[in-house]
Amino acid sequence: MTERGLLIVFSWPSGVGKDTVLRAFMPRCANCALSISTTTRLIRRDETDGVAYNFVSREAFESMIAAGELLEYAEFAGNYYGTPASWVEEKLNEGKNVILEIELRGAARVRELRPEALFVFLMPPSLKILEERLRRRGTEDEAEIKRRLKIAKEEIKLGESYDFVIVNEDIERTCGLLAAVVSAAPCHVKYGRDALREVLKDA
Amino acid sequence: MTERGLLIVFSWPSGVGKDTVLRAFMPRCANCALSISTTTRLIRRDETDGVAYNFVSREAFESMIAAGELLEYAEFAGNYYGTPASWVEEKLNEGKNVILEIELRGAARVRELRPEALFVFLMPPSLKILEERLRRRGTEDEAEIKRRLKIAKEEIKLGESYDFVIVNEDIERTCGLLAAVVSAAPCHVKYGRDALREVLKDA
Repeated sequence: MTERGLLIVFSWPSGVGKDTVLRAFMPRCANCALSISTTTRLIRRDETDGVAYNFVSREAFESMIAAGELLEYAEFAGNYYGTPASWVEEKLNEGKNVILEIELRGAARVRELRPEALFVFLMPPSLKILEERLRRRGTEDEAEIKRRLKIAKEEIKLGESYDFVIVNEDIERTCGLLAAVVSAAPCHVKYGRDALREVLKDA
Repeated sequence: MTERGLLIVFSWPSGVGKDTVLRAFMPRCANCALSISTTTRLIRRDETDGVAYNFVSREAFESMIAAGELLEYAEFAGNYYGTPASWVEEKLNEGKNVILEIELRGAARVRELRPEALFVFLMPPSLKILEERLRRRGTEDEAEIKRRLKIAKEEIKLGESYDFVIVNEDIERTCGLLAAVVSAAPCHVKYGRDALREVLKDA
C-alpha cells in the first residue's frame, strides 16, 4: 500500500515573491504535486488551460460549489477561484504531497476542513523590502501599493496561526527551508499524534 | 553577528534505541552540539570524564543546584543528573544548535523554563518491538522488562506534547527525519513568531 501523502498549504502576503519561489522550488520537490486552481476569470493570451489554472464558466463553477466539490473557494474582483477536492484526494492517495498555494482566507477555510494539513507562511524580510518589491514590479499605482501594503500588514499578523513561517530573504535559502519543512512534515506532531495512538492501541 | 543557535530537546522512552540513533546522527549534524550531562554517579571503567558525562561529587552537584546553575536536574537510583545552563548558553551564543538528550521529566522541566525550545520525541514502531528490543538486550530480568514496558506506555502518552514525533523504524530513516527536523527548526512557528513581530515592528 502506498503511504498517503500530506496536504501542505502555502500562503503569503501579496508581493512577497511567491511565483519566483514556486518556480524554483517545485522542480526540486520530489513527490510533490502543486494544486491547480479552478477559476472563472478569462484566460490570458500567454496562459494554457490546465497549467496554472483550469478555466471554467461561472455556471460550471457555481454547480461545483453547489455539489460541494471544492475544498475551498473565494471570489476576487468578480472572479471565482477554488480548489477541487477530488484532485487533492486523488494525489494524496497516490502518495504525493499536495502543495496547496492559496491566499489567507482560503487557507483559513482549509484549516477548518482539514485541520491535519500543514500550514506554511512565507513572509517578506521587512515591510520596507515588500514595498520596494511592489514598486520595482511597477504594475501598481501609488494608491494600489498603499492598499496592498495595508493588506500585507494585516495578513502578516495571521502568520502566527501557521505551523511554519519562512522569511523569504533569498530564493536559495527559502527553497532549502521549504524542502526541510516538507521532509520534516511527516513527523510534525499533527501526524505524530496518529502514530502515538497507533502504538498505544496494542497497550 | 553570529545567529544564535536553537535549543532542541530529544526524549525517548526507555529501550527505543536512543544511543544507536545518537551515535549515527550526531556526526552528520553540522553545527549541532550534544549537551553533556553532569552526574554524581560513579564513573565506569570504560568511561572518560567529560565525554558522555561530567562526573562531580554530590556536594559539588548540590551547590550547583543551590546556585541555580542547572537548566534541569533529576535524581535516579540515588544519583543526580543535570544540564549546566551556562554550557548551553555558551553553545547557543556561538550559533550552535544544542541537542539536549533528556528523559521526559527533565524535558517537562525544560519546557517550563525554555518554552522556545523545540521538542522531539522518538518512539518505537510498536510496543511489541520495544519489548523484543528490551529482551534482546538481555540486561534486564523479566520483572524489570515488565516495569520498563509499563513506564514506556506512560511515557509514549506524553509524546503528544512534543513538537515532532519520530517513529524509529530504521536508523537511516530516523537520521534523515532528525536532520530534516533540525533544518526546518528555524522556521517552526515558535521561532517564526519572533520574525513576524520583528517585521510588524516597523508597521
